[in-house]
Amino acid sequence: MPLRLDVAGTGFAEAFEQLVNARREADEDVAQAVRGIIAQVRTQGDAALAALTGRFDGFDLDAHGWTIPVEQTAAAYEAIDADLRAALELAAERIAAYHEKQKPGDSGWTDAAGVRLGARWNAVEAAGIYVPGGLAAYPSSLLMNAIPAKVAGVERIVMMSPTPGGQLNQAVLAAAHIAGVTEIWRVGGAQAIAALAYGTGRIAPVDVIVGPGNAWVAEAKRQVYGVVGIDMVAGPSEIVVVADGQNDPDWIAADLLSQAEHDPTSQSILFTDDAAFADAVAAAVERQLGVLATGARARQSWEANGAIIHVARLEDAMPLVDRLAPEHLELAVDEPQPLFDRVRHAGSVFLGRMTPEAIGDYVAGPNHVLPTGRRARFSSGLSVLDFMKRTSFLQLDADAIGAIGPAAVAMARAEGLPAHAASVAVRLARQES
Amino acid sequence: MPLRLDVAGTGFAEAFEQLVNARREADEDVAQAVRGIIAQVRTQGDAALAALTGRFDGFDLDAHGWTIPVEQTAAAYEAIDADLRAALELAAERIAAYHEKQKPGDSGWTDAAGVRLGARWNAVEAAGIYVPGGLAAYPSSLLMNAIPAKVAGVERIVMMSPTPGGQLNQAVLAAAHIAGVTEIWRVGGAQAIAALAYGTGRIAPVDVIVGPGNAWVAEAKRQVYGVVGIDMVAGPSEIVVVADGQNDPDWIAADLLSQAEHDPTSQSILFTDDAAFADAVAAAVERQLGVLATGARARQSWEANGAIIHVARLEDAMPLVDRLAPEHLELAVDEPQPLFDRVRHAGSVFLGRMTPEAIGDYVAGPNHVLPTGRRARFSSGLSVLDFMKRTSFLQLDADAIGAIGPAAVAMARAEGLPAHAASVAVRLARQES
Repeated sequence: MPLRLDVAGTGFAEAFEQLVNARREADEDVAQAVRGIIAQVRTQGDAALAALTGRFDGFDLDAHGWTIPVEQTAAAYEAIDADLRAALELAAERIAAYHEKQKPGDSGWTDAAGVRLGARWNAVEAAGIYVPGGLAAYPSSLLMNAIPAKVAGVERIVMMSPTPGGQLNQAVLAAAHIAGVTEIWRVGGAQAIAALAYGTGRIAPVDVIVGPGNAWVAEAKRQVYGVVGIDMVAGPSEIVVVADGQNDPDWIAADLLSQAEHDPTSQSILFTDDAAFADAVAAAVERQLGVLATGARARQSWEANGAIIHVARLEDAMPLVDRLAPEHLELAVDEPQPLFDRVRHAGSVFLGRMTPEAIGDYVAGPNHVLPTGRRARFSSGLSVLDFMKRTSFLQLDADAIGAIGPAAVAMARAEGLPAHAASVAVRLARQES
Repeated sequence: MPLRLDVAGTGFAEAFEQLVNARREADEDVAQAVRGIIAQVRTQGDAALAALTGRFDGFDLDAHGWTIPVEQTAAAYEAIDADLRAALELAAERIAAYHEKQKPGDSGWTDAAGVRLGARWNAVEAAGIYVPGGLAAYPSSLLMNAIPAKVAGVERIVMMSPTPGGQLNQAVLAAAHIAGVTEIWRVGGAQAIAALAYGTGRIAPVDVIVGPGNAWVAEAKRQVYGVVGIDMVAGPSEIVVVADGQNDPDWIAADLLSQAEHDPTSQSILFTDDAAFADAVAAAVERQLGVLATGARARQSWEANGAIIHVARLEDAMPLVDRLAPEHLELAVDEPQPLFDRVRHAGSVFLGRMTPEAIGDYVAGPNHVLPTGRRARFSSGLSVLDFMKRTSFLQLDADAIGAIGPAAVAMARAEGLPAHAASVAVRLARQES
């Protein structure tokens, strides 16, 4: 059974704190092994990739080919089911439209002191996109990771994926075609991340690495952070639903299960002001678990990490939601805006009764790569900005340096940096002569 | 002597690649020790901080006090030299004005399918600012790190600094007053970063940690990345100057030395199209090194890492500059814009003859916390965005989910996620009934 809490119950504060601080992230000690793999790829390059791919994936890169030619993505696009192709096209179009609005504008102005100032944005040159093998190779993830890079203006979009059997999911290849992936390598795991970060003889290094992966991939990304940019440190998926008693319990149960079915470590939490509705949702979850193809996985998640929390008024839930800083937040009420106005920390918010979280996973447009594990306190979903960077600029003339230069000289002297002071002072001296 | 290269010379490509790839970052094996310190602070909290501060700083926190009361920052502000106070005020005002323009706007719109979409920005609640002890405690760094947090709307700004003698640089305290620091703890090193990330009995955790530090501090920030946000992985400072022969060699020499004086690992590189000017700058550097109070440090940097590179035309330098992706770039020519238009990768650009890099270190307004070690390829200087995060949102009604829901159902089914499909399909069913 999932956790049942009542805000008015005894011990609520302690139980809720425990829920907030529970770490659901795999604590496997993979860091040491990943360090070894990265070192091996840095020193031995392609030979290391071939050896590691043989060992971990049982795939012989030299015998069967290192890459999947980009032409195969076009063929996959033609070959997949027409309804799925149309769905992927609609998703891609809407994702591109949403992310286009994120593109930052350059700025430039001259202030009262006569200083010209501003900032200019540019895309990175190359992005690496990791695609897990097997079950977790989702075409939606490829679209969500690659399209922002494309919209940013990244020229080289490199996909890495383990292919133990030599093949990749056809829907993923079709998505790669739609999103404009430019290279595909049959390499996975920490070795793929190392190759993207440092480059090898065959694979040129990239600037930013994104995409989901297992504990080894996640740790490898963490270790190469700083050599390249990465999207984020990701943990299990989670949803918080704030719902009044006017919802259909079956709808809310389906929403809770749509997170639970991802993984046994996923988390689904319901806040409601209606105890009878809470019971009805719990019963609906049980009914749906019985018939769901992913029911075994979803049940593990729901029983280990699920929670139903009763509050006197839905407004009372909002500070608790902020403490959880959830990846996904549904506000299933007729007038969600007042509740939304009280949200400070959340990855993405789904407003009203007709906005199930899953619509955002696929076709709505906002990115589904979102901060998990309370990281919405300080980080954002994937965006065009993750593939761009800003160059500030500055231009002074003699009057402008006359106006602000003496203050720079005073500060440089106070900091014991005489060459800093001199580089400004020589230009002031010219002016005074 | 610094490296002298000519683009037309034999072996240029190899020598330049070596310059690009030379790692100037300390490779000390501190990672293991830092892991131990972080674990100690997580398990023992304040007792660990007291023990480590006693060991590393020779300072007894329990006997002499854990904090510097914020009132002391106001007293320091009153006590410092009036010219320095005015300089700090001017700097703070200009930094705030520049960073105000970085504040992102919320967005919201309804598209043709009837989907309401958008994004909303919020500040993090608490930021930690590390301030190194001793020589490297710069008031300018405090302003550059704390003011963007303040402009973003961060309520709690926590400064951590080792105080082996119990005191902090008075100019730094004055800057803390100006910038609005709300707490100051006499704790430094990796233990300070651990306390900020995980919290202790006395110190509440923060959401983002910024500020310069030694190798231990930098490694600790890297290790807690993901638990909190961090500004960046930082390396030694660097400058590239692109100058024609019409500059005063003494000015350009001063600019090169203003980076060299930071640290023996700093780097200064000049590109010029005038060989006689190159010689004149080299001679001016020698002259200035002889009289500079920081000359010993600057000479080490210049001789180990400095370079003068001759190009036939200044335009030829620009692809090479992009390969270096420098932290600071000066374009010391009469008409810098055409050269600037060819720059894709640089942290901050200083345009024209009257814009020495040092003016940007102090009073110009843009941030002086900038990506080093070629990280301008994928990252940006510190900004208001480092203290804010974005929540995307979405609202559908029955028509909107009718328009885009079927595509989501198709994709969810293709991905083998039936609960995802069901959470959308139940809402479509209602509509059809």
